[in-house]
Amino acid sequence: MTRKIRLGAFLPGGGQHIAAWRHPDQPVDGATSLEFHVALAQEAERGLFDAYFLADGLAIAFGGGIEGGNAKVAGFEPVTLFAALAPLTKHLGFIATASTTYEEPYNLARKFASLDLISGGRAGWNVVTTATESAARNFNLDQQHPHAWRYRRAAEHVDVVGKLWDSFEDDAFIRDKETGVFFDTEKVHFTDHQGEHFKVKGPLNVSRSPQGHPVIVQAGQSEDGRGLAAATAEVIFTAHQRLDTAQEFYRDIKARARGLGRNPDHVLVMPGVSPFVGRTEAEAREKYERLTDLILEEDGIALIKGLTGGTLDLTGADLDGPLPPLDPTEGMKSRQVLIRQIADENGFTIRQLYQWIASARGHFTIVGSAEQIADTLQEWFENEGADGFNILPPWLPTGLSDFVDLVVPELQRRGLFRTEYEGRTLRENLGLPFPENRWAVERRSTHAAE
Amino acid sequence: MTRKIRLGAFLPGGGQHIAAWRHPDQPVDGATSLEFHVALAQEAERGLFDAYFLADGLAIAFGGGIEGGNAKVAGFEPVTLFAALAPLTKHLGFIATASTTYEEPYNLARKFASLDLISGGRAGWNVVTTATESAARNFNLDQQHPHAWRYRRAAEHVDVVGKLWDSFEDDAFIRDKETGVFFDTEKVHFTDHQGEHFKVKGPLNVSRSPQGHPVIVQAGQSEDGRGLAAATAEVIFTAHQRLDTAQEFYRDIKARARGLGRNPDHVLVMPGVSPFVGRTEAEAREKYERLTDLILEEDGIALIKGLTGGTLDLTGADLDGPLPPLDPTEGMKSRQVLIRQIADENGFTIRQLYQWIASARGHFTIVGSAEQIADTLQEWFENEGADGFNILPPWLPTGLSDFVDLVVPELQRRGLFRTEYEGRTLRENLGLPFPENRWAVERRSTHAAE
Repeated sequence: MTRKIRLGAFLPGGGQHIAAWRHPDQPVDGATSLEFHVALAQEAERGLFDAYFLADGLAIAFGGGIEGGNAKVAGFEPVTLFAALAPLTKHLGFIATASTTYEEPYNLARKFASLDLISGGRAGWNVVTTATESAARNFNLDQQHPHAWRYRRAAEHVDVVGKLWDSFEDDAFIRDKETGVFFDTEKVHFTDHQGEHFKVKGPLNVSRSPQGHPVIVQAGQSEDGRGLAAATAEVIFTAHQRLDTAQEFYRDIKARARGLGRNPDHVLVMPGVSPFVGRTEAEAREKYERLTDLILEEDGIALIKGLTGGTLDLTGADLDGPLPPLDPTEGMKSRQVLIRQIADENGFTIRQLYQWIASARGHFTIVGSAEQIADTLQEWFENEGADGFNILPPWLPTGLSDFVDLVVPELQRRGLFRTEYEGRTLRENLGLPFPENRWAVERRSTHAAE
Repeated sequence: MTRKIRLGAFLPGGGQHIAAWRHPDQPVDGATSLEFHVALAQEAERGLFDAYFLADGLAIAFGGGIEGGNAKVAGFEPVTLFAALAPLTKHLGFIATASTTYEEPYNLARKFASLDLISGGRAGWNVVTTATESAARNFNLDQQHPHAWRYRRAAEHVDVVGKLWDSFEDDAFIRDKETGVFFDTEKVHFTDHQGEHFKVKGPLNVSRSPQGHPVIVQAGQSEDGRGLAAATAEVIFTAHQRLDTAQEFYRDIKARARGLGRNPDHVLVMPGVSPFVGRTEAEAREKYERLTDLILEEDGIALIKGLTGGTLDLTGADLDGPLPPLDPTEGMKSRQVLIRQIADENGFTIRQLYQWIASARGHFTIVGSAEQIADTLQEWFENEGADGFNILPPWLPTGLSDFVDLVVPELQRRGLFRTEYEGRTLRENLGLPFPENRWAVERRSTHAAE
C-alpha cells in the first residue's frame, strides 16, 4: 500500500485563532456548545480526518498562553466531551489530552479505556505533563514540579497505564451461562507496579478495549520530551516553521525510536499546520487579514506573555519595536525557543509576532490556494518532514470546511490522501499495529521455551 | 402541587442480582456494551424515571462485595458512559458515583460540570469516600485511610467542588463581537481555598452549568455519613428492610438538615428497592426462584465476604447453619450492621441470607404483584419513610420493563407519580431549587447593605 498522509484536526469550539470568536462565522458560545462540537466532528469525518484532537489545560490561561485566548477560558473536559461525540460519529478518532502530573494512572486508564469501548476503538491519549504554574496551584501546590521530575513521572505513568490496560487478556471473558464461569481467572492479571512515583496493585476494572491500548500521542520537543516520545508515542505532534527544522526533528525521532528497538514506521510525526485556504492566494490573504484585524492589542500582549511562560509582560512596550530577551522557565521550554526563532528569523516587531502566532501559537501558518497548501504538505511528506499533519483551522466551522472542500480533494487527486476510511479503529486508520497483551506474549514465550 | 414519588433506577449493564448475567434475558456482555446501556437509558426514560444511577468502585470486587459479582468485574467509568448516553436521551437525569478520596476536586468538578453542560442540566454526583482496601492499593497506599479521615476529606472536597462550580457567575459571559469583550472579569472568581486536605486557587475552566451545580447525592448511613449527607446532600440513597428503620432514618436526616438551617424538603430520602414484579404474587415468586436457582455457592460465599469488608470467609462452612459473628472494620460499617440484622431478624441460614441479599446487596427486596409493590411504596412514601425510591431491577432489561409496564401505571393511577416530565433539568424534575452563585449572593447583600 502506498504511504498516505495522516490528518488530525484541532477543533476547539471557541476557535483556534485568538480572535476567532469575533469572526462572523464562529458561534460566539461555541466553546460550551455540544451541538457545535457535534457539527465539527461530523464535518471532520466528512473530510476523512483520522482524528479530532483536543488540547487541554488544568487552569484558565487568562488572555494568553498556548491554550489561552478569551474564548478558551471555559470549555469541556475533553474525554467527557468525546464520549458524547463518539456515538454520533462512525469513523473519526478522538485524541484527548490528559495530564500525567495531575491525574492518577488508575483513573486515567479507566476513562480512556471507557472511551475506547464507547467509540468502538477510536480513542487516543495525548500525554502531557502540564506546564503551567496556574495548574499547580489548582492541585495543592505552590509551584510546579521541575521539568525533569515531571518527565520522569510521565514515563512511569505511561508505563503503569499500559500495564493496567493489559489487566484482562483479549480472551479473558468466557461468559458461559450454563456453567456460571464468567471469566478465566488465569487471564486476569494484577499490575503489581511499584516505582518512584506510583504503587498500583491492579487489575483495572475495565475490560481490554477494542484497540488493545488507545493510541499514545505526545508533543514534547525538549530533550526530555523527545526521549519520552521516542520511547512511548505512536503519534507525535510537533511545531515547525521550516522544512529543515521539521526534518531534523523527524530524523531524530525516527533514529531514537529505532535505537530503542521500535519500528520507526509506527512512530508517526505530525507537525501542526494552520491553513488559510483560498480559491486563490489573494483570497487566502484576505481571510488572513480579516482575522488579524480582529485582534485586540491587549490580547496580543497576553498571548506572548502566556507563550513565554508568563515571563514576558509587554504592557506599555512599543508594539512596533523588537521582542526583548526571554528568561528561561520550568514551563514550556520548547515553545519559548520557537517564539524567539519566529521573531528573529522574520525580523518581526512585537505586533507582527503576535499577529503571526495568533492563529496557531507557533505552529506553521500557511496562507495560500489549495494547490499551494497541497504543494507544501506534499513537500514535507515526501522529504522526511512529516508522516501527516495536525490541521489547526484558524476559525470554525468555515476554516475547517475550506480545508475539507478545497485541500482534501487536491490531496486525493495527487494520491496522497484516502478516499474512504480503511479500518474500523483509529489504530487501523493510522496504520498502527494492535499491541498484544503483555501477559499473552509472556505465556506464549514461556510455552515455546518448554 | 401534590407531592410525587421520585424514582431513580440502578441499571448496571451486567445486572444487579449476583446471578443476573445467567438469566436468559440478560445480555452476557451487557456490562461493556454501549448499545445495551443506551437501551436501558431509553427504557428508564419511557418509565419517566428521574435519573439513571450508577454505583462505582475503584478496584475489582472479585466475586463479591457491595459492587461485586462476576458480571461487574469490568465495566465503564460512569461519567464517561453517561456523557455518551446524554445526547441519546432528552429528560433522564444521570447520577454518577465518584470518589472524594481518590479524585482531585479540580478534575472532579470539571467532569461533572462538563456532563451537566452536555446533558443540558441532567447531571448528579453521588459522593462516596470509597471504602475498600483494594481501591487504596490502586492509589499508592498500603491500606486505606480511617473512616473519620475519609469523611473529613469528603466534607472539604464537596465544599471545594461547590466553590469551583461557582467560578463563573451565570451572566459572566458577554461575548460581544463588536467590542471584543468576551467575559466580565468581575464575574469570574478565584476559589482561593486552603484547608486541611486541599489548596485550590481556581477558577474552574468550565462555565457554570445549566443546573448551577449538578445535584449532590449521598448514601452514608453511619454517624459520619449522616452528618455529611444532612449538611450537603440533596438526594440520599439509603438501605432499609423495614418501615420503622426507614422512618427513623428519614426523621433523623430531616431533623439534622433543619438543624443546619436547610429546608428539609430539599433533602430527598430515597431508599433502595429491588422489585420482583409479577401480574400475580405467584408469578413474582416464580421470577424470584428462577434467579435464586442460578446462584453458585461460591458466589454466595464471596458476596457475604465482600459485604462484610472481607472479614468473613465462609468457605467450607455449613451453608445451612447460622451466620457467625462479624468483626468491625474501617470499611462499609453500616452495611455490616444491616447484614447482621437481616440474618438475625429473619432467622436466615447462610444460604438463605445470600439468596436474599443476592438481588440488591442489603436493599429492600419486594416480591409481589404491581398492586402489592405499589402498596408498599405508597405506605413508605406517605408515612415519612421515603420521598421516592431507587429501583434496583434484579436483572435487565426485563426486570426494569416489568416495573415500567406494571408498577409505574399503578402509581400513576393512584396519583403518586408523574405522567410526563415537569422540567428541563434533573433538579427541576426532582423539585430541587437552583443554587444561586455564592458570589452573586454576596454582591447582592453587599449592595443591599450600602
